[in-house]
Amino acid sequence: MSEDDFAWEIFFKENPKPVHFEENVALIHEFCQHSAIKKQRVALITSGGTTVPLEQNTVRFIDNFSAGTRGSASAEYFLEAGYQVIFLHRSKSLEPYFRHLSGKNIFDMIEIQPSSVTVDQQHQVELRKLAEKYQLYKCNLLMVSFNSLSDYLWLLQATAQEMHILGPLALLYLAAAVSDFYIPASQMPCHKIQSSSGPLSLSLPLVPKMLAPLVKIWAPNAFIVSFKLETNEKLLETKSKESLQKYHHHVVIGNLLHSRKVYVLLVDRISIHPEEIRLSACELEEGIEIESKIVENLKARHDQYYANHKTG
Amino acid sequence: MSEDDFAWEIFFKENPKPVHFEENVALIHEFCQHSAIKKQRVALITSGGTTVPLEQNTVRFIDNFSAGTRGSASAEYFLEAGYQVIFLHRSKSLEPYFRHLSGKNIFDMIEIQPSSVTVDQQHQVELRKLAEKYQLYKCNLLMVSFNSLSDYLWLLQATAQEMHILGPLALLYLAAAVSDFYIPASQMPCHKIQSSSGPLSLSLPLVPKMLAPLVKIWAPNAFIVSFKLETNEKLLETKSKESLQKYHHHVVIGNLLHSRKVYVLLVDRISIHPEEIRLSACELEEGIEIESKIVENLKARHDQYYANHKTG
Repeated sequence: MSEDDFAWEIFFKENPKPVHFEENVALIHEFCQHSAIKKQRVALITSGGTTVPLEQNTVRFIDNFSAGTRGSASAEYFLEAGYQVIFLHRSKSLEPYFRHLSGKNIFDMIEIQPSSVTVDQQHQVELRKLAEKYQLYKCNLLMVSFNSLSDYLWLLQATAQEMHILGPLALLYLAAAVSDFYIPASQMPCHKIQSSSGPLSLSLPLVPKMLAPLVKIWAPNAFIVSFKLETNEKLLETKSKESLQKYHHHVVIGNLLHSRKVYVLLVDRISIHPEEIRLSACELEEGIEIESKIVENLKARHDQYYANHKTG
Repeated sequence: MSEDDFAWEIFFKENPKPVHFEENVALIHEFCQHSAIKKQRVALITSGGTTVPLEQNTVRFIDNFSAGTRGSASAEYFLEAGYQVIFLHRSKSLEPYFRHLSGKNIFDMIEIQPSSVTVDQQHQVELRKLAEKYQLYKCNLLMVSFNSLSDYLWLLQATAQEMHILGPLALLYLAAAVSDFYIPASQMPCHKIQSSSGPLSLSLPLVPKMLAPLVKIWAPNAFIVSFKLETNEKLLETKSKESLQKYHHHVVIGNLLHSRKVYVLLVDRISIHPEEIRLSACELEEGIEIESKIVENLKARHDQYYANHKTG
């Protein structure tokens, strides 16, 4: 065993639990127990970016680009595919169903009459459709939010452990944009860093790779899907394959920052060549989202995984 | 003259203009010209935090904590006090009027009937009030948005310069949380920083102090108010006074991260003791916002400043 094998344990010793941790874990526990009794599939979807505070009284922090588009869209398709969904997301990032109204001006959607305030004709159709879907699926959806990297990792560990009872019924879909670097709590200054002290020098240690204990210890029977976001196309396939070889989980979805809404590649441990999913201009025009195809693909892979587990 | 006196010029030489810069400056130009002809007061309000990208294809960035609460609330009170308002804000931060609906679930505000979708009784009153105010003031309000520190500084310079024509009718209220540190464009890696290269070491030079050219060169006749946010109470008064002595503008509003919604102090060049504004528990209970008192105070100071200018 190398030093790295214990790095994750040291992380949890050195960084305190988030606020409301016990309450959230109790909700997750109940959700998983209930689903296990009913033999329902549960997908954990992580979504949005994590922050790395530079001060304990946080004024400044490092953030990872992510609006939560991939995660929130995928959550809807997993719900529609029959999954129970735990949506572990960055606070104020996009949420399933509500995402469709993001950035819309409510004053453009309503009509003020002398005697009433109504939704205008055009938006009635959209709001009705969304509200009906939300009503239909909200009992199958558990929302849990985080801000910092440390909060996220505490909740990820706890959720994966609670999902253990589900065995191969559990699917983990790790779409959150998680920081690779952090500042340990012990090295964080208490107060705002003063600019009078001159240029800012930061040295950020690597975050321990949590996929290792996640696959080996926390959720050894779950079907685990991770993401690899790159900006350099040349690195994408290699990086995705390396990740899979290192952690021995089930699927790595590679995507590029600038084409992530129309193109992904799926790498697994069996196929020599990665599977590609690409939206045509025509599909894009029709409003089809790539997440619908990703979830359809993963659902079929999870079916197979579950079948193998039962017979194996 | 010291080297620092030219640092701001070097900044603008080294960091490219934001996208849509010319279109935004044209809108600001028209807004200021129009107000100058009508002899209307114009307040520039900056709001929200700036980002400092760590990569050119930005996946990671340093952010400053700010939801835009102070700026968006103040914008409403300046509008109601008769100002024309340029609201230079971080994209997706809180906006005047719309801020009251932030975090509200629209599905909790509407009623789906078989034949119609309406706003429920409780929310009709609130939405009507907001929509009426928004309709009343929207022609006096110009919204311009930014993301990065560099975008913000380009727009700040251009707006201050365009406001020059307004002379002492111009008020600048610099409530944005602006980064003290940045990474020059030339030192930014093109692609996502790889975690395989080990711990992340960053060295961030200081951002040139733009208040110096703002007061001296860009808007020499405007009434200028800046903010000083601290986390350590002991530093607050000293830091606020130092800032005023250094830049020779008109008011520094000192505030603490944890009490900023109930307490500020105003430092000027005349009074020996700073003026304090504090909300009582009772006022807080009634929903009074500290920004209403800040704006009332500044309006009186600006009146005096304008009167002195005319007679002086």
